[in-house]
Amino acid sequence: MSKSAQFIDYFLSHREVTKELAAKIDPEHYTYKPTPTSMEAQKLVNHIIETTYTFVRLANKQDPEKLFDEIDSTELSEKVNTYTEATVKLLSSLSDDNFEQVIDVSQIVGKRIPASQLLNMAMDHEINHKGNLFVYLREIGHTDLPMYVKV
Amino acid sequence: MSKSAQFIDYFLSHREVTKELAAKIDPEHYTYKPTPTSMEAQKLVNHIIETTYTFVRLANKQDPEKLFDEIDSTELSEKVNTYTEATVKLLSSLSDDNFEQVIDVSQIVGKRIPASQLLNMAMDHEINHKGNLFVYLREIGHTDLPMYVKV
Repeated sequence: MSKSAQFIDYFLSHREVTKELAAKIDPEHYTYKPTPTSMEAQKLVNHIIETTYTFVRLANKQDPEKLFDEIDSTELSEKVNTYTEATVKLLSSLSDDNFEQVIDVSQIVGKRIPASQLLNMAMDHEINHKGNLFVYLREIGHTDLPMYVKV
Repeated sequence: MSKSAQFIDYFLSHREVTKELAAKIDPEHYTYKPTPTSMEAQKLVNHIIETTYTFVRLANKQDPEKLFDEIDSTELSEKVNTYTEATVKLLSSLSDDNFEQVIDVSQIVGKRIPASQLLNMAMDHEINHKGNLFVYLREIGHTDLPMYVKV
């Protein structure tokens, strides 16, 4: 199994959960936030899917890009789907050698690291914020929640 | 750098944050929970440190063990320190070959997987619940919070 295929499996085992949580947030709760200094639910989901995509673009030596405007009113779960497809497509194009390539992310994390490490950082970032999202979901009234990862 | 040393660095880059968050929970908030169906703050921290230690024990082919009784009243941050030391000690004993050994965790995750994969699952589990904890911390009044990982 190629490194790319392995990583896509790993990515989707968490992204499927992000997607399931996002789909449970109805538009009236898009601006829900637990405390005044917290990110709004909608912004939190956007932050997760945009950041993972940015890191995967960088691992591919491509500049970051956003797939929706800041004010775009597309439904949240459709945004998740669009970003997920674009992310998988980019991951599919990585060869095993590409995983070892050093990427200059000194402006973001202060150092140059192999693409594989950058991709793992993207996953830790998504898992952390998905962990935030679970608490939001419970607070807006959902008690039937998925496991944090699909096994 | 050995796989063990690399993994310990990775583990501590998150555990230091878990520790910092746990230290911010004063005893009067040990039983805080965001919703009636949520885990209490104290139980959430215990669940994180016990589960990571359990997975590391299994990766070492050792049976799980708890380092404190259910009703033990040791301060939360001291418990985190004790578990962290025991976890690092066990991780240090793993050779590069040990990381490839297949571990039978069919009763927990339904399959036999290499120790390296089990250890990564332990990290994802800790990062997910640490992500929950960040929301708890903000709700009990803390706004000066660390990044989700030490870089």
